[in-house]
Amino acid sequence: NSTAVVDTAVMDIAVIAGDGIGPEVTAEAVKVLKKVSAAEGLELQLTDYKLGAEHWLATGETLPDSTIEALRGHDAILFGAVGAAPGDTSIPSGLIEREMLLKLRFALDHYVNLRPSFLYDGVPSPLANPGKIDFVVVREGTEGPYVGNGGVLRKGTPQEVATEVSVNTAFGVERLVRDGFRRANERPRKKLTYVHKHNVLVYAGHLWKRTVEAVAAEFPDVSVDYLHVDAAMIFLVTDPARFDVIVTDNLFGDIVTDLAAAVTGGIGLAASGNINMDRTAPSMFEPVHGSAPDIAGQQKADPTAAILSAALLLHHLGHHGAADKIEAAVAADIATRDASSPRPTSAIGDAIAAAL
Amino acid sequence: NSTAVVDTAVMDIAVIAGDGIGPEVTAEAVKVLKKVSAAEGLELQLTDYKLGAEHWLATGETLPDSTIEALRGHDAILFGAVGAAPGDTSIPSGLIEREMLLKLRFALDHYVNLRPSFLYDGVPSPLANPGKIDFVVVREGTEGPYVGNGGVLRKGTPQEVATEVSVNTAFGVERLVRDGFRRANERPRKKLTYVHKHNVLVYAGHLWKRTVEAVAAEFPDVSVDYLHVDAAMIFLVTDPARFDVIVTDNLFGDIVTDLAAAVTGGIGLAASGNINMDRTAPSMFEPVHGSAPDIAGQQKADPTAAILSAALLLHHLGHHGAADKIEAAVAADIATRDASSPRPTSAIGDAIAAAL
Ligand SMILES: CC(C)[C@H](C(=O)O)[C@@H](O)C(=O)O
Ligand SMILES: CC(C)[C@H](C(=O)O)[C@@H](O)C(=O)O
Repeated sequence: NSTAVVDTAVMDIAVIAGDGIGPEVTAEAVKVLKKVSAAEGLELQLTDYKLGAEHWLATGETLPDSTIEALRGHDAILFGAVGAAPGDTSIPSGLIEREMLLKLRFALDHYVNLRPSFLYDGVPSPLANPGKIDFVVVREGTEGPYVGNGGVLRKGTPQEVATEVSVNTAFGVERLVRDGFRRANERPRKKLTYVHKHNVLVYAGHLWKRTVEAVAAEFPDVSVDYLHVDAAMIFLVTDPARFDVIVTDNLFGDIVTDLAAAVTGGIGLAASGNINMDRTAPSMFEPVHGSAPDIAGQQKADPTAAILSAALLLHHLGHHGAADKIEAAVAADIATRDASSPRPTSAIGDAIAAAL
Repeated sequence: NSTAVVDTAVMDIAVIAGDGIGPEVTAEAVKVLKKVSAAEGLELQLTDYKLGAEHWLATGETLPDSTIEALRGHDAILFGAVGAAPGDTSIPSGLIEREMLLKLRFALDHYVNLRPSFLYDGVPSPLANPGKIDFVVVREGTEGPYVGNGGVLRKGTPQEVATEVSVNTAFGVERLVRDGFRRANERPRKKLTYVHKHNVLVYAGHLWKRTVEAVAAEFPDVSVDYLHVDAAMIFLVTDPARFDVIVTDNLFGDIVTDLAAAVTGGIGLAASGNINMDRTAPSMFEPVHGSAPDIAGQQKADPTAAILSAALLLHHLGHHGAADKIEAAVAADIATRDASSPRPTSAIGDAIAAAL
């Protein structure tokens, strides 16, 4: 049972390295995790799971129920990246993303998709005046437009109708919003911005609005504002420092977090957690980036996002000291980087491990 | 009948100035339109329509059927901005946007929501290295998640379920996609990027994908690529110059165009057209910005977006020479701007009119 071990010194981690650059960046995250665990007296047990596009090509399996059940036995999951090369027609488009990655998020009830955005000293932002960017996006992970509801009528004819249904529940929105308020309440600025499009999406939008208003009453110290998703785009490039905690739905969160990653120096640095806050199943930690097949196997990928995802994993399991050490080592390494002389993936992992 | 007058020298324009800064910026667009019409020998007939949040407060009317019918009689509509102040509780949130602005787009079948993004010389971009930004977004305007389908079950209870249904038709997607290809085909780079999220939204996404592939066959000179909406966010800040024509759905288009406006110097410059390409009803031209009640009535608003929207109106009515003159005058004026000494709204309009 994953709850029981949280406070012990044993960490039983499932590793899904996946496709493309996934194995390379995950190897560095594991390297750093091993080093910090040894230093902190944590016993680390690692179990590899082969899943992803390559695995599907070899076996026809996306994510069997038996694998989901086996994954449930671990304390947490470290995830690399999955997905075929764009344009690869041997794998149906989106199959692995839906039948494996999203299936895991839904099966293990990863309702908090946590994505910190932090502009490290020394990292070039595409923004001319980025300011001090330090916010976290609390993206809903188990409902909204991602539920796979919808359908198609008269497919392939001039009368085709295709629908997508966004399903939003008070249960799902409330637990997510409450998590966002808890996080905001623990941060110095105590500021929560919820992002939606409630002037157009009135049913879902007003459920979000009412829920935020209700939960806000429990957190009198947290200041709250609202932005339509389109207005949020503007602020993310003109004044990203204004954000502290952003709470949003699954699809808007997908969009907001890639933009947030871009303005903080790119998805090579963006970590994420797919978190089940009730701990009824293991949470999963993954870089925001994909499998980048074009640079796979060449030691060109930046493993920082994977390493920072391992730090989020440690935080989630209560090992804050170990997590803080990784984050400090990453910040120290980033400060020394020189974009004109890139290092191989493993050299970055080595340097961060050495800086621990 | 609006088709008949397109090639004549009379322009019968409905003007909906609206709320907040709407009347101020529209006054400058009208000023410029009058000047250029006189110079080009076009007879301009203007009819004001009172609509928007103020009008609703005064009369309880959003957009009566009789007003829609009256609007149908004009060649085109020049639109300012509508909407109450954020947090104004005397007007139900989103009411004016839905019951007036979106209602017009749907009633008049404005299926091409055209939004050019151009970084003028002299305009500061929030990006450190913006490059040469010159693209146009062809946003679908009559379906997708904007259709107002959806509902709520057990409202206000812990068992509430709220849905939003995105409705996409072969008819609607194809006419939009074909318009995008036509525009791409007329531009020097002949490049079309369609943006969706077909790895998650499979039903709508695959209708878009199949439609783009089918229409692409009719335009062999146009090169086509695809981006997930989250990846598009990244490119819009790291390499916006890569885009030429972006074709996308109603909601993704809303998001993409605000970000595009931000990276090209802000929504004070972003024009748009809500276009019925079949000319079965008048098209409507409006700045992308909203009513900005916080600065209304103070001559602080930039009327450039409204003036450029008037140029789009002239292009749509076939008066390209007059439209080109406005665009050149705007570019000349922008090149002289000094952010440290802002001019009043009317002074900007005067300067552009003088530069015609
Ligand atoms: C791969 C895809 C299904 C996924 C998502 O849309 O959530 C990715 O973009 C992400 O943000 O983790
Ligand atoms: C006001 C709102 C309904 C509208 C939209 O979402 O289309 C606006 O954001 C726009 O982009 O024109």
